Amino acid sequence: MLIDTDPYVSRGERVHVTERQDPVIYPTDHGTFLNREQIAFYDHHGFLFIPQFFSEQETRQLLAEQQRLWETSQSLDDPKIIREPGDETIRSIFAVHDHDPFFAELAHDPRLEAMARQILGSDTYIHQSRINFKAGFSGKDFYWHSDFETWHVEDGMPRMRALSMSIALTENYAFNGPVMVMPGSHRYFVSCVGQTPKNHYQTSLRQQRYGIPDHESLRWLAEQGKGIEMPTGPQGSLLLFDCNIMHGSNSNISPYPRSNIFLVFNSVHNRLAAPFGGTEPRPPYIATR
Amino acid sequence: MLIDTDPYVSRGERVHVTERQDPVIYPTDHGTFLNREQIAFYDHHGFLFIPQFFSEQETRQLLAEQQRLWETSQSLDDPKIIREPGDETIRSIFAVHDHDPFFAELAHDPRLEAMARQILGSDTYIHQSRINFKAGFSGKDFYWHSDFETWHVEDGMPRMRALSMSIALTENYAFNGPVMVMPGSHRYFVSCVGQTPKNHYQTSLRQQRYGIPDHESLRWLAEQGKGIEMPTGPQGSLLLFDCNIMHGSNSNISPYPRSNIFLVFNSVHNRLAAPFGGTEPRPPYIATR
Repeated sequence: MLIDTDPYVSRGERVHVTERQDPVIYPTDHGTFLNREQIAFYDHHGFLFIPQFFSEQETRQLLAEQQRLWETSQSLDDPKIIREPGDETIRSIFAVHDHDPFFAELAHDPRLEAMARQILGSDTYIHQSRINFKAGFSGKDFYWHSDFETWHVEDGMPRMRALSMSIALTENYAFNGPVMVMPGSHRYFVSCVGQTPKNHYQTSLRQQRYGIPDHESLRWLAEQGKGIEMPTGPQGSLLLFDCNIMHGSNSNISPYPRSNIFLVFNSVHNRLAAPFGGTEPRPPYIATR
Repeated sequence: MLIDTDPYVSRGERVHVTERQDPVIYPTDHGTFLNREQIAFYDHHGFLFIPQFFSEQETRQLLAEQQRLWETSQSLDDPKIIREPGDETIRSIFAVHDHDPFFAELAHDPRLEAMARQILGSDTYIHQSRINFKAGFSGKDFYWHSDFETWHVEDGMPRMRALSMSIALTENYAFNGPVMVMPGSHRYFVSCVGQTPKNHYQTSLRQQRYGIPDHESLRWLAEQGKGIEMPTGPQGSLLLFDCNIMHGSNSNISPYPRSNIFLVFNSVHNRLAAPFGGTEPRPPYIATR
């Protein structure tokens, strides 16, 4: 008899750190868009930053389309639009690949799909997409987390076979609250303490309270790798990162807002099952089923 | 008849930005501890960063003395000890030059005094001192401000003839909420809107609500100079900055706490008068009289 146990149990009563049970780079005959050094870097560190991946013209268009979407979303009362805790500033717009023709096309950009296939070793689909805005002067911090921990527990993503791509729409400086990653942390799974409440997503997208790693594990993770990296660079830069890398961001009091497009590619062999935490699945604008 | 008007009016109903009416570097025959390039840099940018100013041995001692003072202060109920908004973590301990023999000696370090005299063109005294602790994981941001604006309005410091020295006791990384400065901003005085409430200092040291510059002025200041600088470096580094430079810091979710010793040197020709905002003077542990 085969006993099927979940290697990535979380939200229990005890913290434990376990080794990753899945490859980072999956065997593939899906081409070589990224070169050997880039693949080795991603494998080792769990992320890859490509400055000015998009041309100036492409970047201008991305920015214009993002501004159009922001403006038309300001007064909408739509669950896909997430606002800052404490005020009504838009923080994220979800599922842009699904409800907006321009971003739908972007999600099928052949270069992006080629990289996703090369790393995940299969065809892919968009698990989640969003535009993030971090306002100048008042952008809030976003605490450390592994996306996979949430996607596994709350969405039912079976294994670590997904990756995020973040396209910088504004320059990412060290001082305007850029994404910070812990290189090498993608090789460990940190279980988090606490039962997930019902409909957790309705508050967690504004401010996270469950799925939060403990201080000791975070210190340990930072010391395993090379501390903390802040990939920064001009508009049009691209950040690829593994679904399980520990990441977060500080606040932004600078006058310079920060906005990014996030696209999450999942392997077609890793489609969602029932949430491993036993809660109801989150809505499809957060996790494609 | 001589009409004596205050060139640095603030806390009124209207924002206005005016040019600085005072030198940055005062004429001096007080020696040349800093070289010509360092003085020119400070004059132009309003700050100077000297990596590893203190020797390893000195830095170890500074750190040990700071830890001793932190530990003995944990459970004290003393107005000189300022705690984070929302919890009881210590954020600052004031007047360490006054109530602690080790830090009293540090405040008279001949090298520090020589630099202060060289820039301010006269003998100096300690206007304010403090140790700042920015906790790992939860250190809060500190919004943009000019120290001089507060010292003028709330303490009665007549002119811009003071400077701060910040000694790094932990490594300052870009990601652990280091001081950010707007180079060149020391050449402009930004008046802030709003009447100062009575006993403002009792809350402002935890979280500032008055003496806050407006967004438009901050954007303008950042564009006048070179945007924003984050002087970062190892333990024992020294940051000198003008009393009127616009500065602040982002939050710190990293596991690495940040702590600094702050010493403010004021010219003996710039001793405090009655507060220019018309309120009662703040207590001597915040502003030496």
